[in-house]
Amino acid sequence: MNSTVIGLGSIGSGIARSLLHAGHSVTGFDVRTEPLEVLRKLGGVAASDPAAAASKADAVFSVVVNASQTEELLFGSGGVAESMPAGSVFISCATVPPAFTRSIAPRLEKTGRHYLDCPTSGGPVRAADGTMTLLASGSAEAFERAGPALAAIAEKVFRLGDEPGIGSAMKAVNQLLAGVHIATACEALTFGIRLGLDPQQVYDVITQAAGNSWMFENRMPHVLEGDYSPRSAVSIFTKDLGLVLDAAREAEFPVPMAGNALQLFQMAAAAGMSGDDDSSVARIYARITGIELPAKADPGTRSP
Amino acid sequence: MNSTVIGLGSIGSGIARSLLHAGHSVTGFDVRTEPLEVLRKLGGVAASDPAAAASKADAVFSVVVNASQTEELLFGSGGVAESMPAGSVFISCATVPPAFTRSIAPRLEKTGRHYLDCPTSGGPVRAADGTMTLLASGSAEAFERAGPALAAIAEKVFRLGDEPGIGSAMKAVNQLLAGVHIATACEALTFGIRLGLDPQQVYDVITQAAGNSWMFENRMPHVLEGDYSPRSAVSIFTKDLGLVLDAAREAEFPVPMAGNALQLFQMAAAAGMSGDDDSSVARIYARITGIELPAKADPGTRSP
Repeated sequence: MNSTVIGLGSIGSGIARSLLHAGHSVTGFDVRTEPLEVLRKLGGVAASDPAAAASKADAVFSVVVNASQTEELLFGSGGVAESMPAGSVFISCATVPPAFTRSIAPRLEKTGRHYLDCPTSGGPVRAADGTMTLLASGSAEAFERAGPALAAIAEKVFRLGDEPGIGSAMKAVNQLLAGVHIATACEALTFGIRLGLDPQQVYDVITQAAGNSWMFENRMPHVLEGDYSPRSAVSIFTKDLGLVLDAAREAEFPVPMAGNALQLFQMAAAAGMSGDDDSSVARIYARITGIELPAKADPGTRSP
Repeated sequence: MNSTVIGLGSIGSGIARSLLHAGHSVTGFDVRTEPLEVLRKLGGVAASDPAAAASKADAVFSVVVNASQTEELLFGSGGVAESMPAGSVFISCATVPPAFTRSIAPRLEKTGRHYLDCPTSGGPVRAADGTMTLLASGSAEAFERAGPALAAIAEKVFRLGDEPGIGSAMKAVNQLLAGVHIATACEALTFGIRLGLDPQQVYDVITQAAGNSWMFENRMPHVLEGDYSPRSAVSIFTKDLGLVLDAAREAEFPVPMAGNALQLFQMAAAAGMSGDDDSSVARIYARITGIELPAKADPGTRSP
């Protein structure tokens, strides 16, 4: 099966790796040359533009950042909508507004290609392991055509309905929770430090107690290690919680917890941490309050 | 070993049951007669007042509601501080302010009894199973004396330090997270319903995705079943988040996520749901927005 991956960031590269591992022919495109070099070394083909990358694909994974990039990729100049073979499937993995998905999917389907609404959960490590969780919705034909490619990258494929947009709505609900949980983990851990608690002990207790969340467990080690290199950046959550608030405003639905969390990520962005790890919200609490966070170990002086 | 349990609500009754199961002699007291009857049937002794209940105890579990009840139990008229045998240990399980713990523990210890700061996590089911998580701090003597009783009720005893107050601070951090997670679970699930998602599907996806929390997984089944009978009541979180905000104000530490969550629980209380299950925050979102929540199945018409 010929699979194409457009956008070779950490998730896209992981997807490409899983597809190669499952025996697919993989063609990739990215605006940067470095991930294309890596793809080539792994046995994939580096294309010179998206239209060329998609021209022989059974399935095209779109792992771009947002709705406007998705629209540009499909229908911009040199877009893939025209180059994709008839009957092939466009698998949209970016987190985008449900309303955007509902409007763009029919535009592609009118041309004789299928559209699968397919946001992901699980992050880069699970993408590379082929164990992602996919929140997918779309027509039976889209699912049928995408099937082998989805099986190669995911441990769990939720088939949420026949209409594109349902997957995106589920992703919005997930990102609401994920964003609030990261911000709250940072609030709770720094508050504990202010109360005199040992941060490692806070982690050990909370991960065994009713206050635990997937995000607390996953992100707070970054704070304990003082390592804010981006595994997932602040900018992802200013974007995704912004998208949640846009969808909520459109639906006239109040989301005060999400609104509050977004403000905390915006504080981190305002402090110049947009490209740093999303656990940087802890550094905002520290900067405001003067508490001391664990420092990054100096590899030169680390004890044996 | 003689153990006493004061306060036979759901947690206290579970603790008494675990102690009996482990072969302790258990004396209990509660202001209501019904739980005392249950204790008697299980092989325990029902005392007529707290002082009598504690008079032969090696360990006295205090499972009252708050700080003022704790103080009254120890030092009020008919309090246990004077009736407890010299060298015995008072095990304070209530969620109380860390500063309260730091002030009351030395008052008891001056009389020759020990004080163990010992908030719990895990709820009634794990209390009855003997598998609680305990967040304990206190002197070596307090831990030594309490040891066999703690072993009988807990799967995991975190020994957090030598000073009473550390356990209470850790509990405050846990309750901050737990309260925010419940409120956010309710916000996310109702938002999903508004976006047209199936609530059971939201549950199935989120519990497999990065948006999961212990509280989402534990509480949202109540909403899916439309059953708001109190497993843990709204009033617990107006109290515990109130305590978090008090401790934060005293420490001059900002906790905007916790403050926001408290307002949602206060809305539920204002709507007359103080004694209902804490997942009732979902009913506040429904009442405000007009979305329809799953109804409680009528046992008379349930399909086979």
